Parts: sequence; structure tokens; C-alpha cells
Amino acid sequence: MIRLGILNVTGYAGAELARILHAHPQVKVIAATGRSGAGKALGQVFPHLAQWDITVAQEIADEVDVVFSALPHGASAQALVPFLESGVLVIDLSADFRLRDPQEYAQWYGGEHPAPHYLGQGVYGLPEIYRERLKGAHLVANPGCYPTGALLALAPALKEGLITPDIIVDAKSGVSGAGRTVDLRYHFSEVNESVSAYGLGGHRHLPEMVQEISALLVEGGRPRVTFVPHLVPMTRGILTTCYAPLRPGGLPSGEAGRRAVRDLYEQFYQGEPFVRICSEPPSTKHVQGSNMCLVYPTVDASGERLIVVSAIDNLVKGAAGQAVQNMNILLGLPETMGLEIPPLFP
Amino acid sequence: MIRLGILNVTGYAGAELARILHAHPQVKVIAATGRSGAGKALGQVFPHLAQWDITVAQEIADEVDVVFSALPHGASAQALVPFLESGVLVIDLSADFRLRDPQEYAQWYGGEHPAPHYLGQGVYGLPEIYRERLKGAHLVANPGCYPTGALLALAPALKEGLITPDIIVDAKSGVSGAGRTVDLRYHFSEVNESVSAYGLGGHRHLPEMVQEISALLVEGGRPRVTFVPHLVPMTRGILTTCYAPLRPGGLPSGEAGRRAVRDLYEQFYQGEPFVRICSEPPSTKHVQGSNMCLVYPTVDASGERLIVVSAIDNLVKGAAGQAVQNMNILLGLPETMGLEIPPLFP
Amino acid sequence: MIRLGILNVTGYAGAELARILHAHPQVKVIAATGRSGAGKALGQVFPHLAQWDITVAQEIADEVDVVFSALPHGASAQALVPFLESGVLVIDLSADFRLRDPQEYAQWYGGEHPAPHYLGQGVYGLPEIYRERLKGAHLVANPGCYPTGALLALAPALKEGLITPDIIVDAKSGVSGAGRTVDLRYHFSEVNESVSAYGLGGHRHLPEMVQEISALLVEGGRPRVTFVPHLVPMTRGILTTCYAPLRPGGLPSGEAGRRAVRDLYEQFYQGEPFVRICSEPPSTKHVQGSNMCLVYPTVDASGERLIVVSAIDNLVKGAAGQAVQNMNILLGLPETMGLEIPPLFP
Amino acid sequence: MIRLGILNVTGYAGAELARILHAHPQVKVIAATGRSGAGKALGQVFPHLAQWDITVAQEIADEVDVVFSALPHGASAQALVPFLESGVLVIDLSADFRLRDPQEYAQWYGGEHPAPHYLGQGVYGLPEIYRERLKGAHLVANPGCYPTGALLALAPALKEGLITPDIIVDAKSGVSGAGRTVDLRYHFSEVNESVSAYGLGGHRHLPEMVQEISALLVEGGRPRVTFVPHLVPMTRGILTTCYAPLRPGGLPSGEAGRRAVRDLYEQFYQGEPFVRICSEPPSTKHVQGSNMCLVYPTVDASGERLIVVSAIDNLVKGAAGQAVQNMNILLGLPETMGLEIPPLFP
Repeated sequence: MIRLGILNVTGYAGAELARILHAHPQVKVIAATGRSGAGKALGQVFPHLAQWDITVAQEIADEVDVVFSALPHGASAQALVPFLESGVLVIDLSADFRLRDPQEYAQWYGGEHPAPHYLGQGVYGLPEIYRERLKGAHLVANPGCYPTGALLALAPALKEGLITPDIIVDAKSGVSGAGRTVDLRYHFSEVNESVSAYGLGGHRHLPEMVQEISALLVEGGRPRVTFVPHLVPMTRGILTTCYAPLRPGGLPSGEAGRRAVRDLYEQFYQGEPFVRICSEPPSTKHVQGSNMCLVYPTVDASGERLIVVSAIDNLVKGAAGQAVQNMNILLGLPETMGLEIPPLFP
Repeated sequence: MIRLGILNVTGYAGAELARILHAHPQVKVIAATGRSGAGKALGQVFPHLAQWDITVAQEIADEVDVVFSALPHGASAQALVPFLESGVLVIDLSADFRLRDPQEYAQWYGGEHPAPHYLGQGVYGLPEIYRERLKGAHLVANPGCYPTGALLALAPALKEGLITPDIIVDAKSGVSGAGRTVDLRYHFSEVNESVSAYGLGGHRHLPEMVQEISALLVEGGRPRVTFVPHLVPMTRGILTTCYAPLRPGGLPSGEAGRRAVRDLYEQFYQGEPFVRICSEPPSTKHVQGSNMCLVYPTVDASGERLIVVSAIDNLVKGAAGQAVQNMNILLGLPETMGLEIPPLFP
Repeated sequence: MIRLGILNVTGYAGAELARILHAHPQVKVIAATGRSGAGKALGQVFPHLAQWDITVAQEIADEVDVVFSALPHGASAQALVPFLESGVLVIDLSADFRLRDPQEYAQWYGGEHPAPHYLGQGVYGLPEIYRERLKGAHLVANPGCYPTGALLALAPALKEGLITPDIIVDAKSGVSGAGRTVDLRYHFSEVNESVSAYGLGGHRHLPEMVQEISALLVEGGRPRVTFVPHLVPMTRGILTTCYAPLRPGGLPSGEAGRRAVRDLYEQFYQGEPFVRICSEPPSTKHVQGSNMCLVYPTVDASGERLIVVSAIDNLVKGAAGQAVQNMNILLGLPETMGLEIPPLFP
Repeated sequence: MIRLGILNVTGYAGAELARILHAHPQVKVIAATGRSGAGKALGQVFPHLAQWDITVAQEIADEVDVVFSALPHGASAQALVPFLESGVLVIDLSADFRLRDPQEYAQWYGGEHPAPHYLGQGVYGLPEIYRERLKGAHLVANPGCYPTGALLALAPALKEGLITPDIIVDAKSGVSGAGRTVDLRYHFSEVNESVSAYGLGGHRHLPEMVQEISALLVEGGRPRVTFVPHLVPMTRGILTTCYAPLRPGGLPSGEAGRRAVRDLYEQFYQGEPFVRICSEPPSTKHVQGSNMCLVYPTVDASGERLIVVSAIDNLVKGAAGQAVQNMNILLGLPETMGLEIPPLFP
């Protein structure tokens, strides 16, 4: 059995790691820390995990092969440095190793990067794009939930040069994306029966999207990306609607164009275990609790604009599930191991 | 007292008309028909209206001064012709008199228009734009819920020439927008905890938006409009997020540009009783049950794109409330009469 | 105009008072305090009240005729004493003047009563039971939300001696009943899609129910009351299901017995503007935003047990609406003034 | 591999069977029928099951070892007779083999039983009570969702003679309990933000409860059971609150009594893999998607009444999960095989 540690199991992403890893046949979580709740049984913090005999620890004392961090940014890099130095495989669910430019990091995350010398070593953990690089990696920067939804929706169009990079990402997220933070904004009575936009002045996932979209651009250059996240009254799920101008002349008109786009997407994701191209716009509920990403690409009525809708579970493909997928790749295990959980519906 | 009739009080828009008109001091609903439920007391169909002594009728038998129709398109125009011919003021909540081009109507609504000779007489009932024309009108085409949210968000930018008309309208609606139709798509277990896009192949509110955006364009021409509606797990409310390129050179950069846009919007809607410009992105819950439209205009991080977010209650400003506002205008009553209902929060 | 003050307008009950009083034709709120938010415009705290020009104050400086307190218990009585001493009419939405026994108060509310000498002066503000006493009152103890739902369900059966006082009250409340308190228990992601019981060791509304049920018992004695409140994933509303043994021999069997119980309830509440006996079990949504209480009494299959279901909006009939109803009584105004707001449905 | 068939996979219980059995290592579903949707891929009916290559069939043509029926009552028994006659193991999720008295069946299910000669062969599939009998069974009557929640809450108290059998069962169910039936009552806009009681005139799960409670009574006799189900605005989950008088003198008073009750419950369910006694009242969300039943027994403030709260997922322990648990028992497999799915939280 491969020995795992989880830093900060007491948030939603950490608990979701625990849920998924519990069913994984080749690994064993031997230590899990929590910012609050150290000393408690995990089942006291999360009754749904009560069957699992684990105590929340102050720190990871025993030797582990892989460590996951679900700590907040800043704290995460700091806590991970000793593991990196002793050769433990590291999968960081925080944003600390996602942006490759330390100045960008400082601008968006408010402070100098705690371990800039490791920035170059992190591999951005989107397996559908970076699988080969991930195979030999020691440090995985697990993508943000919004970038995961947006990049999986846009990657085929970008890599195949279907669109000009003038992109709008309009995302709708469930409330669990905000974490377990206690705040009036996430009070049931305030958020239920309500939709709102936020982060219009600049959300931290925007530079991450821009960095990764740039990397996918066939002709280089810097994309123009507008990103507006929205909070919707549900617990899990992100629906991402992306808009971009089609390059002129690239597609037949009408239904044939739509078919061509769909074929292109199906080819791009051929064989991917966790991406499925849909013939109808997807619902977030169809991926609830699973690592799947559903993608629906189409062309608008004018024939000039690509629209792509993707659906993920923000805590699974947008966080813990993708982290386990990355772990499987790092360890040379079958990529779907422990992740063949069907969605919970209805 | 002014005598009113309601055609099809047994849907959500009809019931909302009843709720609002009940509190209006100058009018009295003397007849209300229902497709189902004729002969029943209104309170049997809608227990929340039980205190109101009205029986659902087969037809409007008595003389009325104003008739509201909440019938489906097609049936609505047919039922309204006799009233139009006898000089009764007509406010049509269906789509029948919104599109001025009978061919567009036939294309989008599947069939010839039942009363094309009246098409030219309808005034599009968006008071913030067409108040003067509405004052002498006999036939009001009450706007669709999505167009109301989009047009109030875009009108100032269009009329002031702030943007080029290459517009994306990404709207998020509560389930009541689909009406009281019994369908698996609106089954609680299917739609709860789920967000999805629909109508990507072309929603009927798109030609209505295009027609009205065209009318607002300072330089004429035909706008390019992409419209994607989304279903979110709540009962009431539409949040509309609009995107359009700013004309180059029109605005100072950064915060000053945002401030300039807000000033322009505040000036445009100065004195409007039912539009408020917000300094924070609005929540649909802040207008629940009321006729208000909240509008938040801003500029994205690149400084090149306008983003406007608007929030309405789809059944009030998006349907019955706006219809009553139009009635007040037609009758020369104070525009806010009966509509000064504060939103229900939380 | 009658001059009103509101203590603590910045919680849900206070905001609901503001919403209702805004539409009342005979009163004017001239001062409203807030524990947080003093100095802010009310619309900054509650955007849905932005149209109302009022600033949250530190204290009520000007002379008022009536003061409402939506302060927490303890603080409420303390703040109200000066008003009581200067003869201002006082309506207290807190629990401070509900229990008539200071020892009970100390036991359940953890501390000596701040103004025990006023305990005898408070009238329990359930107009359907205590209307006559309320007419001359100076101090109204506005009932708790759970007791309101339970007492209106049980009063006819108790006063008419239909049941033996061995009562179970199983109540289901929306989350707004917990107030605007920021707490992990009310975090959207924790409470959505979940039902739970709480307060099984003894909820503060239990002694209030026992006191008032005792007062309604025709034969005296002390009732046995078991009360279990439940939290359900909705914002507003309390559904209360009450169970009690029917006195033997009191009723015909079968449908005739059910009919007799319903007749008894209809007679008891004859003419009450805010109680309606239903022929079907009510839904909380049918009273959303209104001061109505719907009551459905029936007999179980065995013929030996009375079941009564009641539905109220916890913030209206369960708090602010009932407080305004009490104010109308105190002031000799028509009892329904400002309260004829139809429920918001759907 | 053991070969399975599912009758009516296209409802919620059938789909849930598919979800659970998909992950079971020892069985393979080789045929699944659907009332609607025959000929379609399962993934067209339920996109969340798209990864599973199965076509909805008209009937089960191939040989199977076990058949599950998720057909409606009446149709279920009819369809199962041929399988029973050919010696296939049958697990019936419908009500057809639950009531042992054909007259009771006729009274509650409106019609003669289609296969009364098999009534005596069915074993009521509540493993915690009937495990030994299930071991040799050929026909399992899988319990109803409400009886499962109520019986697991009450069994220890009944079998140990702790209470007198004068029982109230107040249950709160998510909407999926009503199945995938399209009906205005389950329309999102009608049921969201609303709680209501139903079935007060007699719900079909009442005679099932009475039959099974009678069987558990130590002293025999017929219990008096009042059962009121409620619909709450969530998709999955049943919270059941049970009330019954404690036999006098059986327990120490106060906290010691509560402790004694909890000990008794813990002993009773010692070693049960799917029942856990909680020290806090449970939330339905803590069992979402899992086969667990959480039970919280306590004594009310008077010391005279037992209160027990249980939480299950109505589609898992209340239907498909319990059916798989029963299958494991019938087949001699480890009882938890395929069912060790942690709940989905949040």
C-alpha cells in the first residue's frame, strides 16, 4: 500500500479527498491534519466519514509517499517545502504552484511567494493537456475549479485554431466552491433562491486561465479573457459557458458546422476517461460526486461564435478527484483507479 | 373603479397579476378566465389567493375597461381581437404582438400570425424606453422576461453609443419562467441542485432582443446578439450578464472608466422608479416579489469590454408587474400605483 | 401619523418589520437602531429596502409613540425599560416578557430577568386568544414563532376540551428562524438538501408553549408537552404537526368525526382575519410573506388521535406581522391595516 | 459473475440499483427493462449512467440468477411470477409481497393480489431484523422507505419492551420518494421553499408499519400507530421522528435514562454494518448516497416519552441499497459488498 498524508482534511476539498481515497484499492491515508479539530476523530468533524478510523493530527509525523495539501494558499507552499525537500511526491490543491510567474503570484495573492525556487518544478495538473509531463513530476499544481471547467471547454478550439482568443467565460458555481468558511454571504437564508455575479473586478482564477489559455494558443500571443463567476443556490457543480469568435472560413455553415465542431471535440478527447462530449447541453447534476467533465460545443445562430458549455463537480474534477487522477499518473497506476464512482442522481 | 379582466389567471403570470392588482387602489378585477379550473374559486387553484372572492370563468362576459392576457402565444392574439375591436385597452403578456414582422413571428412561433393587421398598433411595453408612445396606446405588447432583463442592462450603452453591437447575453433564470407546465424537466428532483443551459439553437426571446436592440442603435445596422439562457435551481428571478466591446477611446482607463460608465447609467435612468443602479453586483433575491430592476454596469480588467449585470423578478418586472406599470401609464395613473411592494427578503 | 421606533432593525425580524411598516398608511418609522451598521443607510445593510430613506441609528433619540424591539433577549428588556417608564407603547419581539415566572425565565434564558417588575404587565400578543386584554395593553410580549404555530393549531381543541393534554408538537422550520447569525450550522452547503432535528434536550419555546397551553386548559392542571423542532432547507415558513389523544366518546367515528372537528375549528376562528381552516393539508409556501396562519385539523385512522397541521411564515405571523397586528390593536386601528399583503407564490 | 436482471430501470429506484450494482465486484447486470425508453441506451435516459454500456430492453430474455423489480405494485408481482416459478431469486422493491394478508393488500392497494399463493414465501427484507430468515429466502419483499426509517428507529425499543405501543411516526421525506412521476405536486416551483404534510387519511406504508411493529412487540397485541409523512424541499433523504410512551419505572431519570436508552440501542445494533447510533441528532445529508441509517434515541424533558430520530437515504437504505444488501445475504456474499460507498457531503 502506498502511504498518503493529507494536509487540512477538515475543509470541503480535504474531506472530499478522504471520501475518494477511502475507496482506492492501492493507497492508505496514514495521516491527516486539520487546522481546527486536531485530536478529534475525523467522524466528529464530518459525520459522513465516521466509519473511517482516523484521527485529525497536528502534523504528519510518519513517513508518507505522497502528500496532498488542501491548505489555503501561502500556508500550503510553506507546509509543503519540507516534503519537497525530502522527495515526497506533492499534490497541491492550493493555488501556490499554479502561476509560474512569482510577480503574478504576488499581485494576485497578496504577498511574496513562500517558495519561489520550486515554481519551475510544478506541473499544472490537467491530465487531458499535460499527461506526459505529469508522468515524471514530483510536484503537481492541481488546477483551480473554474480553470478546470473553462480549459476543458476551450482546449480543443484553442489547440486546433478554431477561434480567435477573445474569450468570455461565464461560470455558475455551487456554494461549496467558497469552502467551509463561515460568512454571511454563504448563509442559507441569504444565498438560497438567489443568483449573483462576483469577482468582476478580477478573480484569482483569471490569471491562471490566461496563463493556460496562452499556452494552448497555436499562434502565440496573449489572449483577451473576460471571466465572470456567479454564485447559484446549489451545493456542488460548476457550469461554464464559454464564448469566442470563430475564425472566418473555418467551418461549414448551419448544422454541418455544428457537427464539425462536435467531431473536432470528440477527436480531441478520444479515449479520455473523464471527458465526455454531449449531444445535449449538460446539467451539473449529471456529474454530481463524480470526476467526469461533460462538454457541449456548438455554434450560435449567427454562425460566427463558438459556444462551449462544460459541467463538472467543483469538488471532484474541480479539486479532489482531479488530484487523485494526478496521483494515479504520478504513481503509474491506472488513471481511473478509485475514480470510477458513478454520479449521484437525482 | 376601473374594471379589469384577466385572460388565463391560472398560470403563474396570471396569478401574479391577481396578486398585484388585488392591492391596487384604483382598479377591480371583475372577471378572470382559466384554461383549466373554470367554475372553481380562484382560491382552489391558488390557495395563496383564497382571501380574494373570485371565480374562474370560461370567458369575460361583463364589460371591462382593460384586459390582460396571460394566454399562450397564438391563443392570446385570437382571444384579444374582439376586445381590440370594441376599443378595450389590451395588455398582452404573450409574445403575439412583440415582433413587428409577421414573417419573423411565423418563423419563431411556428404558424401564421392570427391577427397581423394589429401588429403595427402594438407598443412594446418597456416604459423606460417607450413611455411616451405608451401614453396613447391601445395595445401593449408586454416584453418577455429575458428581453426585459437584457434591454434594461444594455439600453444606456446602446443609446449612448458606448459599445459596438456585438453582444452576448448570458441569462440565469429561476424555474417559474417555464410556467406551470408539468414536465420532467421541471420536476423538483431533476432540476434541484443543477444548472443547465438551454435554447442554444435559438430561443424565441432572441429575435425580440435583436429587434429592440436594433431600435436602440444610434448608428443603425443589425446587431450580432448571442443569447444563452440557463435554468438555475430557484423559483423566481433572472440574473442577466451582458458583454459587449467598448468603442475604442470612449472611456478613461481603470477605475475612472468604471465610474464614467456608472455615471452614464445613473443619468440615463435618473428618475426611473423601477430601475436602480447598484454599486455592487446585485442578487436576484434583492428584487424578489417586486417590480425593481437592479443594474450594475462595469468594465472588465482589460478595459475593453463592458459588462452589465441586471436582476429582475421574472414574474414581476419580467411579466405581471411590468404589465401593471403599463396599465398605469395607459390609464394616466401614477406609474408606481400598486407597485410599491418592497421585495421579500430573505 | 403615529411615530414608531425599531430597536435592532438589522436582523431578519427587524428588516421584516421595516418591510411591513413601510406600507402601513397610518404610521411612520422615525428611528431604527442596529447593533451593527449604525450610521449606514438601511439600504446598505438590506438592499431590498434601499428605496426607503432611513439611516440606522445608535439609539432612538426622538420621541416615539410605539417602540418595537427585535433585540435579543436580555438586551431587549434592558433597552425597553426607559420606554416603558416614559409611557411609550412597547411591543417586544424578544422572549423577555413572555414567561410570567421569573424563575422559569432564569432557568431557560440563563440569568436573572433584567426587569422583573414589568413581567406582570406584559400581555402575550396572540390576538386570536388575548385580543381583549391587548386592547388596553402598554407592553406586548410578541409570541415566539414556534409557539404561534403550535398554539393556533391547538387552541380550539384545548378550549373546547376535545383532547387530553398529552401533546406532541413536531415543527419544521425554515432557516431564517435562526436569524442572521453567521454559524456553520446555517452555511448553505451544510443545511441545503438536509433535514435535522434539534433542541431535543429542551428548546426555549417549550416553557412558553407549556405556559400558554396551561392557560387554555378548561380543567386546569399541567399539560405534558413534547416539542421537537426541525430545520428544513428553505428560508421561510414553519409547518407544525400537533398530535394529542381525543377524549373518549367526544366525537362520531370516521368522516363524521373529522367533519365535526373541522366545524369546531371553523367556529372557533370565525371572523379571524389571519386564520383560515383548510380542507387540505396546507403548504408553507401558501403563506410566504403574509400574516396568514393556515390550520388543518383532522383525526387519525384509529379515530383516537387528533392531528392538527398549521402553516405560518415564521417572520410574519411568527414575528413581525403579528407585532404589527398587535400594534394595530393597541392603537385602535383596524387590525388588518398594512397586513393585507397576499402571499408570494410560487 | 452472478447474472442479474432489473425490471424497470428507468425510474429512480431502478437507476439507483444500476448505480450501486455497477460498482459491485461479483455481479453483472445483463438485462434491464424499462416501461418507457425500451431500445434506448441507458445513458440516454440517465446521462449519469452513460459510461455503462447497457440498452433498455422490453423484457429480460436471457437467463439470470437474480431479478430485481422496481416496477409499480401490481405490475411487479405479475412480472415476477415467471421468475419465481423458474427458481430465479427475486428481490421485489414494490409493495407486492410486503403485506402478508391478501385482504389488507386489497384494501390498501386497490385490487386483488396478482399472486396470493406467493405471499407466504416472501421474507420482509429488513436484514437487521430478519437476517437469518433471509439467508434461505427465494423471494424478498424489500421494505418501503418510510417503514425502513421507522422500524430501524423503533425496533430496539419494541423488542426490549421499553415502550408501550402507542406510537407516532412523523416523517420528512425528500421529493425523490415520489418517484419520477410528472405531476404538478412535484413541480420545482410548487414544492421548493415549502413543507407540507400528506397522506393523513392513511398512507400505504401505514399497514406495513403496523404489521412489522406487531411482529416486534414482546407481549403481542396490536399497536396504535399514527403516521404522518411530510414532503420537504430536498431531493433525497428521510428523517423520521418517532414518539412513544416509556413504560413506567423502566429507566433512571434524567441524563442517566438517556444514557441507558442509548446503551440499549447500541447493544441492539452491535456489529450492524449499516446502522450507527449517534450522540447528536443526525442530518439526512450525512447519509446522502449511502446505505447507512443513523439513529438517535433520547428521552424527552418529562422523562416519560421516548423520542427516536433516524436518517436514511430513501433511495439507498430505503430502496436500492437495501435491495443489494438483501441480494448479498441471499447469495452468501459479504453483506457490505458493493455498499461501502461513503456518503456524499456536502
